[in-house]
Amino acid sequence: MSTPTALSGSSNHQIRLASRPVGLPTRANWNFTTEPVAEPGPGGVLVKTLYLSLDPAMRGWMNEGKSYIPPVELGAVMRAGGVGQVIASQNPAFAVGDYVNAGLDVQEYCRIPEEQIKRSGIFKIDPGLGLTPWLNVLGLPGMTGYFGLLDVGLPKTGETVVVSGAAGAVGQTVGQLAKLKGCRVVGIAGGRAKCDWVVNELGFDACIDYKAGEVKAGLKEHCPKGVDIYFDNVGGEILDLVLTRITRGARIIICGAISQYNNTTPVKGPANYLSLLVNRARMEGIVVFDYADRYPQAIAELAGYLKAGTLKSREDVVQGLDTFPETLLKLFSGENFGKLVLQVAPA
Amino acid sequence: MSTPTALSGSSNHQIRLASRPVGLPTRANWNFTTEPVAEPGPGGVLVKTLYLSLDPAMRGWMNEGKSYIPPVELGAVMRAGGVGQVIASQNPAFAVGDYVNAGLDVQEYCRIPEEQIKRSGIFKIDPGLGLTPWLNVLGLPGMTGYFGLLDVGLPKTGETVVVSGAAGAVGQTVGQLAKLKGCRVVGIAGGRAKCDWVVNELGFDACIDYKAGEVKAGLKEHCPKGVDIYFDNVGGEILDLVLTRITRGARIIICGAISQYNNTTPVKGPANYLSLLVNRARMEGIVVFDYADRYPQAIAELAGYLKAGTLKSREDVVQGLDTFPETLLKLFSGENFGKLVLQVAPA
Repeated sequence: MSTPTALSGSSNHQIRLASRPVGLPTRANWNFTTEPVAEPGPGGVLVKTLYLSLDPAMRGWMNEGKSYIPPVELGAVMRAGGVGQVIASQNPAFAVGDYVNAGLDVQEYCRIPEEQIKRSGIFKIDPGLGLTPWLNVLGLPGMTGYFGLLDVGLPKTGETVVVSGAAGAVGQTVGQLAKLKGCRVVGIAGGRAKCDWVVNELGFDACIDYKAGEVKAGLKEHCPKGVDIYFDNVGGEILDLVLTRITRGARIIICGAISQYNNTTPVKGPANYLSLLVNRARMEGIVVFDYADRYPQAIAELAGYLKAGTLKSREDVVQGLDTFPETLLKLFSGENFGKLVLQVAPA
Repeated sequence: MSTPTALSGSSNHQIRLASRPVGLPTRANWNFTTEPVAEPGPGGVLVKTLYLSLDPAMRGWMNEGKSYIPPVELGAVMRAGGVGQVIASQNPAFAVGDYVNAGLDVQEYCRIPEEQIKRSGIFKIDPGLGLTPWLNVLGLPGMTGYFGLLDVGLPKTGETVVVSGAAGAVGQTVGQLAKLKGCRVVGIAGGRAKCDWVVNELGFDACIDYKAGEVKAGLKEHCPKGVDIYFDNVGGEILDLVLTRITRGARIIICGAISQYNNTTPVKGPANYLSLLVNRARMEGIVVFDYADRYPQAIAELAGYLKAGTLKSREDVVQGLDTFPETLLKLFSGENFGKLVLQVAPA
């Protein structure tokens, strides 16, 4: 057990939710606060934030009302997962210097109490694989892609898998994993650069540029036998177009709907949902937390692919805690290229 | 084998699809024709139509374009399933006088060729249970309800099942079967009379009158633990309201969307479909034909309940082939009370 490091005098910069946004969040929705860095409590640890994961789901957490997890309270530090380093520990399982993955929130230092450690709310990571992949293919997005594709999608060799947000965190895991499982994989991403990368670097069979308006023709061209599995991260018009191309018994995994998160009008429901009837197909939602007891198995498999070079992990790293409000918006404009990560301190 | 009955001189009145409707079908979409009654071909039978099944799916068959079965061609006799009596037979499996269930189409006499008999496109029925139940709980609607509820819905004792079109053919089967399987059952139907019947005669726990605008409040009141299974025959606003009340792991069976079939604007997609994500729920389509090899097992079970009086079958019988164009519309106004059947000849 390490002796607690005295941090008196150090300050912890934090970003708190000041108000609930209507449409896209703006800087006015956030409060920048500073408080002294706290010592870890009995059985707890203190973690210095290195990288924070910026995710589309964050937009949902900013809304009032019950979802799959409670909203962030007004005045609270914004919720975020991250990778950090233990700088003080009163828990024998963690030593100063350990790299960890945990809910660190949008702040420079995070105190993790003993009860959070007990319910596996923090775990040590192997920095030998890099740090940012632990927020990407080895993190929650990777787990989401892994269990969504394998447990909900049930891919079979030779089937055609389409994934939207293909260059994003979940999308790159889904597509590469589907290739490893012997599927034909077609991505949908925004812009030629992302599409080229998805095909040339990740090995997808094709990638459709939705920003070039290619979705309808692209699906027809690249999915000549139809779509057996659609992993949907975007919703909206793209979901509707894919629904017109599904095969009998197709599986549609509803992981997200980033195109709809900043709507100020009602969500656009999939007008072509009766294609589910005609094709005896299934549309099913996934929330990654349900698979928590199987994360170690999934991480072991994905880490094996990473080491072998058969799986790649690309992160788009932006510097500086204070850029958080604007950096988050890159997700909704599709500006990020790879999993969006905020670097809070030098690693 | 029966000797063919000479029917020369008799005429067969038929109703043919003259044009494809936009919105609700009108009399102008139909052609009334008459042709001589044909003798059965070698190995075939000739059936006199007694009752025809009028179903919401018919509206879809009138549209151009591929669906789960091909559309009715312009100029063809309108497709319909029915119950009739064999009046001439050149097939040893069928005797004159046998009651049968088959695709008879909207006409007075139907010639069933040998190849249709070989692919089980006609089967003998037991008139001891009545004739019209063979178009209702013992017919395709019953099969749809049986396999949709049991195979797709996977009901467990104590779960809450909601079914729309509760007084219709599929709805009455689903609700009564769910009660027999130990579920709490809440129907949705149009008008107080239907709702009362569903509760008092069929034994549902409650029934919500959608025409009285009770759906939102009714779901809250009658499904205090949420909706585990929703069997959807109607789509539209009701589907969206149910989506706000589903439980974690809920199953939504997409059987039809009668509220949308006569739209001249695009189908209204379920705006609340992201409830599938939050609740890890599933929406899945069913087409009854996929279960054809298991119809005999389902019919045996349902016939057993009918004989025991634990299952009821209510049909709304309208007289006269010539009333077909107007009678069909009762489905879309919700005027029919029970499974809609057209009586073509006295039984």
